[in-house]
Amino acid sequence: MEIQLKQDERIDQLMQYGLEIIQSSEVFSFSLDAVLLGDFAKVPTHNRAKVIDLCSGNGAVALMLSQKTKSKITALEIQDRLVDMAQRSIQLNNLDEQVEMIQADVKETKHYIKKDSVDVLTCNPPYFKVTDDSRKNPNTHLAIARHEIHLTLKELMKVSADLLKTKGKAYFVHRPERFLEIMDDMRAERIAPKRVRFVYPKEGKEANMLLIEGIKHGKETGLKVLPPLYVFDDNGNYFPEVRRMIYGNE
Amino acid sequence: MEIQLKQDERIDQLMQYGLEIIQSSEVFSFSLDAVLLGDFAKVPTHNRAKVIDLCSGNGAVALMLSQKTKSKITALEIQDRLVDMAQRSIQLNNLDEQVEMIQADVKETKHYIKKDSVDVLTCNPPYFKVTDDSRKNPNTHLAIARHEIHLTLKELMKVSADLLKTKGKAYFVHRPERFLEIMDDMRAERIAPKRVRFVYPKEGKEANMLLIEGIKHGKETGLKVLPPLYVFDDNGNYFPEVRRMIYGNE
Repeated sequence: MEIQLKQDERIDQLMQYGLEIIQSSEVFSFSLDAVLLGDFAKVPTHNRAKVIDLCSGNGAVALMLSQKTKSKITALEIQDRLVDMAQRSIQLNNLDEQVEMIQADVKETKHYIKKDSVDVLTCNPPYFKVTDDSRKNPNTHLAIARHEIHLTLKELMKVSADLLKTKGKAYFVHRPERFLEIMDDMRAERIAPKRVRFVYPKEGKEANMLLIEGIKHGKETGLKVLPPLYVFDDNGNYFPEVRRMIYGNE
Repeated sequence: MEIQLKQDERIDQLMQYGLEIIQSSEVFSFSLDAVLLGDFAKVPTHNRAKVIDLCSGNGAVALMLSQKTKSKITALEIQDRLVDMAQRSIQLNNLDEQVEMIQADVKETKHYIKKDSVDVLTCNPPYFKVTDDSRKNPNTHLAIARHEIHLTLKELMKVSADLLKTKGKAYFVHRPERFLEIMDDMRAERIAPKRVRFVYPKEGKEANMLLIEGIKHGKETGLKVLPPLYVFDDNGNYFPEVRRMIYGNE
């Protein structure tokens, strides 16, 4: 199938999954955050699970998940330009039967997905609170993806709790400086934080990302702090675990 | 000076600090937790700070802190047998002028230490909630040190907040499975969690300890997740950072 690329677009490989993903540095390109989230999220391999990816961007996480399960994946993204990119990536990988991309505001999810129906939910949300500066970002596409212009953390947790069935699992990637808020907002919606993994750019540095798993109506005790994940070694090369997530076992 | 040892007692060296500490496996021996806390806590080097160690046990943390500052250290411990051990360790190290040991219930601290007066507070509290089993522990000394028989987390945070001056710093060592409770109880008393460090027994394992710094009336944003601390390498030897905390730079 011939896929049309727009002028600013390129195709990136995600070899671990045998995927090709349309990227654009001017609009949106998935980065390590998405790769880490796609790796961290546990999905059943069978075809009976309902799997949802919110704030899907160019669909990278949804595409990765499709390679870990036979179940269908529904992805939501508010920006039509990104939905268009994602839909062409879905075609490019012949995943039309398995991955569905919906252009919608996450807060309107209830019109598309039944309440209390989701087994696994993933989201790589906007990380930053809206400030005067963020509203002034001349690139609206990037501003919406990075700043909480259309979706706050509280709203995300509310929507996630509504969608998930009891014992359904939510996976988020976010920033450590908002860790306490994340814990509070998850618990306020009765998504119990279960496992957290901190991601460090390299040895000796503070964490700059975190991965968190929550369970709807799970017990609020026994949070596990998983082994740390380092991204780069002292020579600036990916640590083996990260290299494997991107390139697979070469 | 001749220090009398009781039958079950021995003297352990803490070479990094040039300290000798009386230990007893039957009553209480400080372990790695105390070493990590003593290392993690920041104390001004000058002699004008008010430094308090709660749940002091045999005084190990208080003794370590004394080697990092010229300020006086006041330590509280509820068990008279441990206070007696600690007092003999203080004498053994000629620190009578700098370290004071008080036998008291932490909840009665206000009778000994002025409210809103403390610059730095440390505590290695009992880690475990009281269960039917813990009450049945035949060794009362160990049960009190390990289980929240006389002091709960909430009570500890209340006392800490009362003692600390505004911007005073609290340092705790605890277990990751109680991390969310710790965050909640600290913030309920307006001790803002500022820096957390997770301690992993070895690479690839979940964290089994955490160190946390809080600031009274500090801003509740920007929690920092410090580099992970590994205790043992694959050969069962201490990692260099931990070896240094115990033995110093050999």
